[in-house]
Amino acid sequence: MSSFSIGVDLGGTNLRVGAFTSKFERIGLSTTPTRVFAGPEAVARDMCDEIVKLMRSCADSRTLQGIGVGSPGPLELPAGRLGAPPNLPGFEGFELKQTLENMLQLPVHVEHDSNAAALAECHSGSGKEHHETSMCMLTLGTGVGAGLVLDGRVWHGMNGMAGEAGHIPVEPRGPRCSCGGRGCLELYASASGIHRMATELASAGNSPAIFSVLDHDASTILALAGLADRGDAQACEVFCQAGRSLGAALAGLVNVLNLPLYVIGGGVANAWHLFAPAMMEELTELSYVYRLTRPNPSTGSSNGTAAGRGTTRVVPALLGSDAGLMGAAMLPYAN
Amino acid sequence: MSSFSIGVDLGGTNLRVGAFTSKFERIGLSTTPTRVFAGPEAVARDMCDEIVKLMRSCADSRTLQGIGVGSPGPLELPAGRLGAPPNLPGFEGFELKQTLENMLQLPVHVEHDSNAAALAECHSGSGKEHHETSMCMLTLGTGVGAGLVLDGRVWHGMNGMAGEAGHIPVEPRGPRCSCGGRGCLELYASASGIHRMATELASAGNSPAIFSVLDHDASTILALAGLADRGDAQACEVFCQAGRSLGAALAGLVNVLNLPLYVIGGGVANAWHLFAPAMMEELTELSYVYRLTRPNPSTGSSNGTAAGRGTTRVVPALLGSDAGLMGAAMLPYAN
Repeated sequence: MSSFSIGVDLGGTNLRVGAFTSKFERIGLSTTPTRVFAGPEAVARDMCDEIVKLMRSCADSRTLQGIGVGSPGPLELPAGRLGAPPNLPGFEGFELKQTLENMLQLPVHVEHDSNAAALAECHSGSGKEHHETSMCMLTLGTGVGAGLVLDGRVWHGMNGMAGEAGHIPVEPRGPRCSCGGRGCLELYASASGIHRMATELASAGNSPAIFSVLDHDASTILALAGLADRGDAQACEVFCQAGRSLGAALAGLVNVLNLPLYVIGGGVANAWHLFAPAMMEELTELSYVYRLTRPNPSTGSSNGTAAGRGTTRVVPALLGSDAGLMGAAMLPYAN
Repeated sequence: MSSFSIGVDLGGTNLRVGAFTSKFERIGLSTTPTRVFAGPEAVARDMCDEIVKLMRSCADSRTLQGIGVGSPGPLELPAGRLGAPPNLPGFEGFELKQTLENMLQLPVHVEHDSNAAALAECHSGSGKEHHETSMCMLTLGTGVGAGLVLDGRVWHGMNGMAGEAGHIPVEPRGPRCSCGGRGCLELYASASGIHRMATELASAGNSPAIFSVLDHDASTILALAGLADRGDAQACEVFCQAGRSLGAALAGLVNVLNLPLYVIGGGVANAWHLFAPAMMEELTELSYVYRLTRPNPSTGSSNGTAAGRGTTRVVPALLGSDAGLMGAAMLPYAN
């Protein structure tokens, strides 16, 4: 009998639970609101209810490989204990893994959502074609998350804090970041960073067009991108600045890690055409390892190596918002 | 019968060959000038002559585990083919591993010298006390080299170019680097970078004291350090700038990799007392992962963890100029 696994994507807005075959084809999905106000125990209970429903509907024809949960960080691993996730107020210190295992009486694999997404992109998304086993994924959402997969396994660092690429300093005299640092990548390349830069331009009175689309919800980025698409020079400059900061952060990563694949995901990545040219230009200027290994524009292979081998690729994510859910379902196979 | 191994440190000035027990106690050493002018084949022949002499003197009482060579980069791995090492002119494209194996009729392990040094520091130097298996070492010499050890093994990246931490961009509007990039760490934290900054100060007429010690040989850094030790504010500022750039680069590394140990070696590290305070201040400000995991000044343990566990340490190298040679001798055991 073939196997299946259950993946959970614990978001600040929605709780998504999916069942997947061993080839990671989705065979079941439930989406419910995350009842953050009801507290972590209630959310864990909701999670277990949906997990059990999906397990029952799949267990006739397949055997359960295991259950994986992708959670917002900070997250202490391997304990699976939450830190203080900004979009899950009241969850600080919650024993996510232990609580779920007690409720389900089954082992549960818990992972950072950005690491789960990286695992899925590596195995079934942008890493699939070249069978990559190492990659770095940057997820440009409200903040900038990151996941590092090295030789097929998530790199956690010594206490699960690896992958904080959103807090690589890219601008020594940049503004203060919520992390306490200064000039972090996240201040330029996240949705909130783009919003901040656009607000600064609008407040300086330089761009009535930008001022007219500024809002505090997620549609701001979409509206700003629309403005840039219609040729507004200052809206374009905001995305270029996001691209340059990504290029600088990637330059450091490429020079230090020499990975074959860097993937840009998250909602902001939908504006790829607006920020990628500046990102690639900055990366090319700042990283000589990239210049030595970039794809040859005509053949897709790097300088002096066989096609696809030894090439550094920087690409948009392929799996979209499903990456986190699918990656969570991969955890029982990866561990 | 216990084993021994031979390590080779191929430098631009000296060729050092050492024999080591399996516990990496040195039991033999030869130092000869590197006859760069005679070409790579002659240098390989010299190397083999010294290796054979040491093998003969040790082989009575021990069995040979293998031979390891630490070489300046760029170096293509696993082929063991040299790129164009700046201090080995005329060696570009030289098949170092293949040539040595043909001459000796024995397998030879070739590695970047900075990676060999990192391996030695991890196993027998600053990583020994806490039995670290992962660390990053920055070697501040003429340039800034780096070696990354992850789970006990050197991380090479996809084609041996990993560890170019000297070319992490730390200053977006910084000067051009010889790598083609801009504002690289190496421009601030290497001997040549410190020389450059001091020259700029002296040329601007701001520091007759600095001008008087400027020279083009290695003693400049020593003389500058002496000036700083005697309280010269501008000489101090040069080392502070080196420290701040190291702190910024380390902040990115700590946030992305979450390793337990970062080691600063190379000749410039002798001025630790002059640059480390600014380095630690910048690292603390820019890396929240560091702030969460730094040693507690009173107990030496990190916040909320058992002593030595889960702590990020940034320390000077312990092994000095022997690290590269010892690390080369470790390669036959590590591979």
